[in-house]
Parts: sequence; structure tokens; C-alpha cells
Amino acid sequence: MSRTIFVINPNSSTSVTEAINQAVEPLRTAQGPQIACLTLPEGPAGIQSQRDVDGVIGPLLSRAKELEEDASAFVVACFSDPGLHALREQSRRPVFGIAEAGVLTALTLGQRFGVIAILPTSIPRHLRYFGAMGVMARFAGDLSIGLGVTELADEARTYERMLATGRSLRDGHGADVIVMGCAGMARYRRRLQGELGIPVVEPTQAATAMALGRVLLADL
Amino acid sequence: MSRTIFVINPNSSTSVTEAINQAVEPLRTAQGPQIACLTLPEGPAGIQSQRDVDGVIGPLLSRAKELEEDASAFVVACFSDPGLHALREQSRRPVFGIAEAGVLTALTLGQRFGVIAILPTSIPRHLRYFGAMGVMARFAGDLSIGLGVTELADEARTYERMLATGRSLRDGHGADVIVMGCAGMARYRRRLQGELGIPVVEPTQAATAMALGRVLLADL
Amino acid sequence: MSRTIFVINPNSSTSVTEAINQAVEPLRTAQGPQIACLTLPEGPAGIQSQRDVDGVIGPLLSRAKELEEDASAFVVACFSDPGLHALREQSRRPVFGIAEAGVLTALTLGQRFGVIAILPTSIPRHLRYFGAMGVMARFAGDLSIGLGVTELADEARTYERMLATGRSLRDGHGADVIVMGCAGMARYRRRLQGELGIPVVEPTQAATAMALGRVLLADL
Amino acid sequence: MSRTIFVINPNSSTSVTEAINQAVEPLRTAQGPQIACLTLPEGPAGIQSQRDVDGVIGPLLSRAKELEEDASAFVVACFSDPGLHALREQSRRPVFGIAEAGVLTALTLGQRFGVIAILPTSIPRHLRYFGAMGVMARFAGDLSIGLGVTELADEARTYERMLATGRSLRDGHGADVIVMGCAGMARYRRRLQGELGIPVVEPTQAATAMALGRVLLADL
Amino acid sequence: MSRTIFVINPNSSTSVTEAINQAVEPLRTAQGPQIACLTLPEGPAGIQSQRDVDGVIGPLLSRAKELEEDASAFVVACFSDPGLHALREQSRRPVFGIAEAGVLTALTLGQRFGVIAILPTSIPRHLRYFGAMGVMARFAGDLSIGLGVTELADEARTYERMLATGRSLRDGHGADVIVMGCAGMARYRRRLQGELGIPVVEPTQAATAMALGRVLLADL
Amino acid sequence: MSRTIFVINPNSSTSVTEAINQAVEPLRTAQGPQIACLTLPEGPAGIQSQRDVDGVIGPLLSRAKELEEDASAFVVACFSDPGLHALREQSRRPVFGIAEAGVLTALTLGQRFGVIAILPTSIPRHLRYFGAMGVMARFAGDLSIGLGVTELADEARTYERMLATGRSLRDGHGADVIVMGCAGMARYRRRLQGELGIPVVEPTQAATAMALGRVLLADL
Repeated sequence: MSRTIFVINPNSSTSVTEAINQAVEPLRTAQGPQIACLTLPEGPAGIQSQRDVDGVIGPLLSRAKELEEDASAFVVACFSDPGLHALREQSRRPVFGIAEAGVLTALTLGQRFGVIAILPTSIPRHLRYFGAMGVMARFAGDLSIGLGVTELADEARTYERMLATGRSLRDGHGADVIVMGCAGMARYRRRLQGELGIPVVEPTQAATAMALGRVLLADL
Repeated sequence: MSRTIFVINPNSSTSVTEAINQAVEPLRTAQGPQIACLTLPEGPAGIQSQRDVDGVIGPLLSRAKELEEDASAFVVACFSDPGLHALREQSRRPVFGIAEAGVLTALTLGQRFGVIAILPTSIPRHLRYFGAMGVMARFAGDLSIGLGVTELADEARTYERMLATGRSLRDGHGADVIVMGCAGMARYRRRLQGELGIPVVEPTQAATAMALGRVLLADL
Repeated sequence: MSRTIFVINPNSSTSVTEAINQAVEPLRTAQGPQIACLTLPEGPAGIQSQRDVDGVIGPLLSRAKELEEDASAFVVACFSDPGLHALREQSRRPVFGIAEAGVLTALTLGQRFGVIAILPTSIPRHLRYFGAMGVMARFAGDLSIGLGVTELADEARTYERMLATGRSLRDGHGADVIVMGCAGMARYRRRLQGELGIPVVEPTQAATAMALGRVLLADL
Repeated sequence: MSRTIFVINPNSSTSVTEAINQAVEPLRTAQGPQIACLTLPEGPAGIQSQRDVDGVIGPLLSRAKELEEDASAFVVACFSDPGLHALREQSRRPVFGIAEAGVLTALTLGQRFGVIAILPTSIPRHLRYFGAMGVMARFAGDLSIGLGVTELADEARTYERMLATGRSLRDGHGADVIVMGCAGMARYRRRLQGELGIPVVEPTQAATAMALGRVLLADL
Repeated sequence: MSRTIFVINPNSSTSVTEAINQAVEPLRTAQGPQIACLTLPEGPAGIQSQRDVDGVIGPLLSRAKELEEDASAFVVACFSDPGLHALREQSRRPVFGIAEAGVLTALTLGQRFGVIAILPTSIPRHLRYFGAMGVMARFAGDLSIGLGVTELADEARTYERMLATGRSLRDGHGADVIVMGCAGMARYRRRLQGELGIPVVEPTQAATAMALGRVLLADL
Repeated sequence: MSRTIFVINPNSSTSVTEAINQAVEPLRTAQGPQIACLTLPEGPAGIQSQRDVDGVIGPLLSRAKELEEDASAFVVACFSDPGLHALREQSRRPVFGIAEAGVLTALTLGQRFGVIAILPTSIPRHLRYFGAMGVMARFAGDLSIGLGVTELADEARTYERMLATGRSLRDGHGADVIVMGCAGMARYRRRLQGELGIPVVEPTQAATAMALGRVLLADL
């Protein structure tokens, strides 16, 4: 098993990549596949609009093509799953998106999933995606914390907003499991889950865990 | 009303653009907005894969940005509606996609719509899109004629396949209205509708007609 | 193009017909089809109940039959779309309902549509209709302003209620596009859209615009 | 319990009313409510089109109004449930439609219901109705026997078509329960069920049984 | 008609069985089938968890097997419908569950049903069931009164909570019909319906009424 | 990581358990959690009916309770996921069902999943479960190979039936990914996938892979 699971952060923020790298650390085992987290330098600092989503697909596909021979699987680590289906066409390896994997994982932890988005403008995009996934029957709500990329640096405020948003999803929308609608926020997961009292899914972990399982089974 | 509805064919085949141009001719009126059909030279000869779809978004947005001031509306004339939501973000003008408009128009003509796709690989992409649109409750089926871009030059064979596929959708899947799942096929519409005995929607016409209405109402 | 799009207001209030007439004025072009707005004198002053809806179908069909030869299309201008499918059976012309067209148009402007109803008793009827249309996956909510037909004469109060209801749909139900659930309210549309900050669809305009497009394309 | 359940056949065929009368005979008990089956002379010989459906609502409501004081419940005995919701508004008594009751009853007998329609033109109308009922997730298919009202007099042929249609629904569409999509066919039910090997619901029985239960419970 | 409809309360509380017995009293007629309400002594005092639900299935099936020859129908009188489908396999008699019957009955009384649950932990279980029934398109909400089995003895408090919960379902979730999500609460139904102003369905009545109809029709 | 993932085969066939044991072998890594496959001796030779499903829940819960302290996760290895939600209530460990995990995994491999069932009587049970999961929008079909437990010993015949059924799902129902609707069939997976040309999911592998990921992440 000499090949690598490549987790590609399609924005150019290395701090996000580093946070993802720490998040997936428990999935690295001596015998299992390597897991490498990469930044896409061509991406924007943060992926906020549909235009941003669509714009990173080209560079993402190019990068993945270079990595193909060394890859055992790919994880696209942005909650809009940019290029997921194009990369599935291009690559002979399994490909996972963190939104898809995060939501599917949530379906094993509760009956109605709520999503904590960063920006309100992401919500219609998420809804189109959940519709394409055919999972709206399990959808409780999608609410944003309303902070821009730069404001996320204030961790106390970010966490406070996440907690308030999680409570609204739980109490007002009936969510019994929460999906974090972004990459790079794994450091808040455990505390958020504890305070909300319902499971919270960190989507880069969810997707990389699925990738790990697929890779281990690939030879069977 | 000096501005123009720009119908952008995101592939580089000028013959497709010309076919679209003829298809929307009846929507040009003396007093109404001008309608200009453009080819995207950066596009592939035909848009066949998700990668093709995603790949034309950048050039499409660039072209539309140049046209913004002269535009009264945009129509994206590929049945995968590439860049539809990104262009809606970017532009202050109304933006229409031919798949969205074609399906919504079909919903006024029958209870269950069937789609004639060109290639089988397009079908999962269509299904994701119809799911995102939330219209699967009205979906009858999506079947392909199984011809590549170059084979479409044989018009007799193309029509024969369309007719057979339309019959399967009508008789085997319960479709009572058909959407042509591609641009540039308007010349077959009337005959196909006549032989099938159920309405057939040509999607570039559907989208441009919607654009026309929106433009006329824009000042109210 | 000597034939006429007949927009039939199935209630007997000529003031409503006049408001519709003004609403569709921008769709009248020198070269395009004529658009005539008619009142159905047999209808009630306002259509408020399912009984009212069902009761106008007979007179509506009779009137449409008289107009058939002069018609290029019909628009049924009541938000319950009375007789829509019966008229589609009876007529050889395209037939549009303002609820159907208003909702389908909203689907091109936002991801979740909210409806402003006049009376609370209309809401279950709307829901049955949206279910029949298969669009509940895109439905955000339907709330009434709670004013009777006579109270609608107080325009300031009516607008104030519409605005409050639109805000509830936007903020409490996640609507990002609003459909006015009645005919004859076009004069509030622009201001409402401006204050809500999300698109507002006036359904008689939506339906008549669709009819215009269909008529222009009819000979192709 | 001196009041009566009125089962109103909204077509003018007394033979249909008589067949209904026999079908509901087992629901008449000494102590229970009377059940009277009526013909609507204003109705057409058979209800075949949406226009027919809508056209009988007025006479149906008038007749029901006359019967209101003597009624304990109403059953509308046409599979398009004409006037069901208008009658629910008008009457203080419980009101049942045979399509609604037939389908809901089928949901207790199998996982996917199939419908045997008389005419193909009824199918889109049925689908709109099942959509309004919100039961399309349990829908297997709706196929017609393709016989006109007069042809139904040939009982052998009618039964043969019903059996063939039921087999198509069972084997090709996955139906595990069948609803007869018309009134007046109860005489075929038992044999059809026996030969198909899956439950067959006769909808006038289903609706009248529901009415009986509601009436008995009305005083609690 | 010498056989009996057996209504089996799968918990061991005879007070609940007695309440059910009173609730179905109006369905007993001189000529009609007998209705016997039984307690399952092997059941817990109250069925609160999925484990409780699953745990009573074995004893329930055993008891029903003993009763088979004397039975004309079975009603499983717990809102989680424990063993419903297993009993349908085992028995040659019609079998009804109170949740299924309660919800289906509600669909004839309003467009969106709300459910009053006893405990919050029941809600995901209810949602799974409504999903399996395919009726989520008609679902308004499911809220609990938050009282344990022993606390239900305080009738004033129980009623007050039910009323408050019903109001939340009606005003906040758009419910226009309420289903009581438990057996043994029939004594509150009439008053609750009166104060809420929308229909309230007591599910043991709904199921037993359906059973009665089925039994009366069984010989046809 | 000294605890174990317990994969419990709830039927009493040790050959099935052994087949599962081989299927999950690739998921055993030196550093990762142990995976132990157990037989439930109280179970029937094969789980064929709803009664069988419900009947194994009690023994399954008892066995899992004994294993709780040694467990890092549980996998319920029967395609009806018996006791899944009860075990989730009982245990503090993550619990997976092979039907749930198999279908969710399929959603990452195709747009419409088909299921190969063993017996036709399982299909309505599967459909109820997929409805409860809210994934019917992605469902293509569920067809059985029609062989009893003992007939499955004829491997050539079993494989031939699986292949034919897979082809029907792919060609007649539009499935682009297949889920094997049973445990213990992993030996056919690779060949079936090769001959069908679309992904085939073996559900015990899917569930155990999910369990592995969850366990590795459990401390984060």
C-alpha cells in the first residue's frame, strides 16, 4: 500500500490546510495508506461564491491529474464539493467530497441533519446540492454564522456563533445531528458536540475516513 | 429598449450557434429587444462530460462580463446549464439556462416530462440537476440516443434515434411531454412532436422566450 | 399575428381586471400579439373558497369557447388556476394559469419560494396545488395577510401586511423569492421587492409573459 | 342514529349507482347508519375528462346542500373526487372521496399501489391528485384498460383488460396492491384479487367504510 | 359474524387498555363484530424507547397467534406500531396499527398533520416511520409534551401540555390537523379539538374504525 | 486501541459469518482496531421475514450488552438492519447497519442505486427502510434473485441469477450502482462488478469500513 490519499484544499489558505491535516491525523496508521493534505495555490483565500466554486475546478483537476499515479484516492476538501463529479470522470481512483461525505455520515447519527454555514450566500448553493443528492427528506435546516473569511480568525466569536447557530438548528428546526458546513473547523467540533448534546460531524474527517475504507478494500 | 438578449452557446461549434439563431428567430420583434447568439470559441466542439461543463464556466463568465453593459439578459445555451448560478451572481441582468427553462416549460405542457439526451454519460448529470431543481416528482425518464457529436451530422439517423427514444419515454416511462436535452436540434422539434403526438420542448426557445418576457417586464 | 392573448379574470371585480391590464402593459409590443384582459361577470367579487374556485370553471370555459377562434392563448388570472386543466382540454390554444406560471418563474429567481396569500383558508388549497405541481421540494412557506376582499381597498394597510408577511417568509421560513398569491396586486410588487431585498413575482405578469413567448414561437 | 350516509354517484348512470349500492351493502347494519346511494341526474353518462369532473361540482354541491340536515356523512363516488374540498367547506358533515379513501386504504395493504384507470386521459389527472395527496412515494403506476364507457358493458372484455393491466402493474411496475380507478366495478374485485394474488381495493367500499367509522365515532 | 376485533395494547398498563376500551365503545354495534381490548402483560408499563418497541413484538405475535381463530382483525394499539408488518405476515386477518391508521385518517381531515408525542426521544422514531409510510410531504411537525409515563397521571398538567403543543404545531408549523401520538388519551380529544379549532385524531379510534370497515366488507 | 469492532451476523449460519469474516479482512490493519465477526446462535438459519428480523433483536441486544465494554463499535450484519436503532439507544459505541451503510456508500458511486434482494418478500421491507432513510429519490429498483437460503449453496446458479438481476436493474431501471441486498455474498462482488460494468457495493464491507473510520476518529 504505497499510494497516498490526497486531501486537496481548493483554497489557497495554508492555515486551513494545516487544520485539515490535524483533523485527519487519527486516520493515519502505520500499515494504512498515507494521507497528504495539499493547498491549491490557484484558489482564492476562501471559497465564498458559486463563481469561486466553479473557478477552482480547472486547477483542481490539473493538480489531481499530476497526482493520479501516486494517488490511492482523492478528497476534495471544500464544502461545495467543487469538481467532484468532473474528478470522478477524470480519475481511476475513488473520489470523495466533504459535503457529500459529511451529510451521508450525519445520516448514520441522527434523523434530521442541520448545517452550519459560514455565509448566508452559501445556503442556496447547499440546498441545490442536497437536492441533487436526494436527501432533502432528512434536511432540518441550514443557517449561517454570518462571518467573513477574515473574521473567522477571532476564534471565540466564531465558536460562539457556531454554538448559537447549532442551538437554533436543534431547537427551532428539529436537527438531531449537525454538519459543519466548511473545512478547517475541526478544532471546534468536540466542544460544540459537547455543548449541543447532539453529534457534530466534521466533514473532512468524514470524507477522509470514507476514503480510507475504500482504499483498504480496493484490492478485494 | 436598446439592449440585447445574449444567447451564449458555450461550445465552439458555430453550426450549433446558427441552429440556435434560427430557433429563436420568431422571438425577434421590431419593438422588442434584440437577440444575439454567440459562440464561445474557448469551448470544446461539444460539451459531453462534467469536465467539459465545468471547463467552459470561466470563459463564459469572462465573455458575459464584457457584454454586461450591452445586455438585457443572458441565456446559457447548453443543456447542462454551465455557470448558470455563477453568472447570476456576477450579472445584474436576468440569466436563464436552457435546461432549467426547458424543464419548467415542459411542466406547463404535461404531467411527466421525459428527456432525450445525446449521450448516456449525460444522464446522471441531468438527474443531479433535476434533483437540485426539485422536480423529480414530475420526472418520467431520461434516455439517450447514443450518438457522438460527429455522428449527429447524419440527420436522418439522428432523427430516427430521437423518435425511437421519444417513443420509449412515452410508452415505457409514461412521459406526456418531451424535452430535447441539447441545443441546436430545433429543426427536428415540429416533426418529432407531430409523430409522437405529445408536446416537444426545444430548450433554447424556452429559455429565450422566458428571457424576452423578463426583459419586457423589467421596467415595471 | 392577428390573434389575441386573452387574460381572463374569473372574478367580477373590474378593478382587479384593470390592475391586471396595467400589469401586463409592458408585454404589449407593436408587432407582437394583442393582449386583452377580461372580467368574468358570472364570477364572485373575489375568489376566496374552493367552492368559488370550482364555481367559476363553467362560465370560464363558456367564455373561452366563444373566444377560441380569436385567441392565440389564454391566461387564467386567479391564483387558484380555476379550470386550468379543463381549458387545456377544451382549447387548441396554449393555456396558462397564474399560480403555475408564478411559481415556475420563481424557481428561476431563488431556491425556496414563499407565497403571500390573502386569506388563511387559501393555504391548504395552495398546498394541494403545489403538491400536484410536484414543487414542494422548493417550497419555503405560504402565509396570509389575513385581509378580506373589501379590506384590500385600504392600500397602506394591505402593503404593510404584505411586507410583514414577506419578512416572515424570508427570515423565518428561508424564502429567497416571493410569489404574490393573488391577481391585481402588481402595483405593490416593485416596492415590496425593494424593501424585502429578494425577488417578488407578480403572477399575472409571469403567466402573460409565458403566453407571449409561446405565441411567438407557435409557428415554428 | 337516524341520519344517513349519502353516497353520491356524480354521473347520471343509474347502473353505476346500483353497482355501488350493492358494493356497500355489507356496511349496512341494523344499528348503524343508513347508507343511501344517489345518482346525480345533471352529470354526464360517465365522467371522462377534467371538464366533466369540474362540471359536476355545482350540481353535486346543490344536491348535498339539500341533503345536509339528513346527512351523517357524504361520499363522492367518482374516482376524480369532484368537489371533495368544496363540499368539505360547505358541509358540517364528514366528506369522503373514493380516490382519496381508496388510495389511503391501499397504503395499509401494500407498499406500492397501482391504479387501474379506465381511460388513458385520466392518468395525468390522477397523478396531479396523488401529488396533491403527497403519496407519490408509494405510487407504483397507473395504467388504463383503454375502454370507453359504452364498451364497459362487455364484462368479459372489461375483466380481461383489468386482469392484464393489473398484471402489468404487479410485474412491470412493482405494485403489491391495486386500486380500481373507477366506481361501479366492485363485481370484479374478488376475482381480480384472486387471480392477481395481491389485494385489490374497491374505492366506493373503502370510502363508505371510512364514512361509517367516522359516523359511529362522531358523538365521542 | 361471530369473530372479534382484538385491540392489543402492547404495554402492561391496564389503565391504558381501559381507556382504549372506552374510546372504541361507539364502534360496537349489535350486529357488527365484537371488539375486545387486551393488555399484553409481558410489555413494559409504557413503551418509550425503540428497545421497548422491538421488545414487545415477540409476545405480541405469540398472543395474536393464540387469538387467530377467534379474530376477525387485529389492532396494534401503540403509536410505534410494534410488530405491525410481522403480524401482517403471520396472520390471515387484517391487521392495523394505530400510527398508520391515525396518520392516514388525518390525511382526510387536513393538509398538514402535526403529531403530539409524549417524549422527545420518540420523535426520530416517528419520523422514520412517516418516511417509511411515504407521507412526509404532508407532515407539519412532531413535538413532545415532555412528560414521562408516571407524570401522565396528572391529567390537568397533561392536558395543558397537549394544548400548548397543539398550538405550536398549528401556529408555528402550519398543522391543520393533529394526531395524538399515543394510545389511551382519548378522553382529551374532544376538548383539545374544541380549543384548537382544528380536527384532532385519536389513533386507536382511527385504527379500530378501519378494522371495523374491513371486517364488514370481508365477505364481499 | 485495544477494543474491537464486533460484526454480528444475526443469523445462525456460521458459513455466512465466515464469508463476512473474509470480506472484512482487508480492513484489519496492524495498528487499527480488531474486527471480530460473530454468529448469533439464537437466530434462524436465514433471516427471511419481518418476523425473523424482529425476532433476532432481543438476542442481538443481549449479546451486544455483554460485548459493550470490549467494543469500539458494532456492525449489524443483516440487510434488514435488525435492532439498529435499539442498539444505538443501548450502546455508547457507534453502531452501523449494513443496509444503511451499503446504500449510503452507493450514493457516492452512482446516481441511482439498485438492490439485488434474495427473496421477493424482502422487497417491501427494503422499501419501507429506504423510505425511512429518505433516499427514495435515488432509488432505481429492488429485484430479487428468487432463491431460498438452501438454494444459495449452488454458487453458479446464484451468481447467474445475480448477474441477470443486476442487468435488469441497470438496463431496465436505470441503476448505475448496485447494492448486494444480503450479507455473505462478498465472493461474488468483484466478478459481478466486472461483468456489469458499474460499481457493486458489498454491504458488510461498507459498514465495517464506516465503523473503522469512526473508531479511528473517536478520540478526536
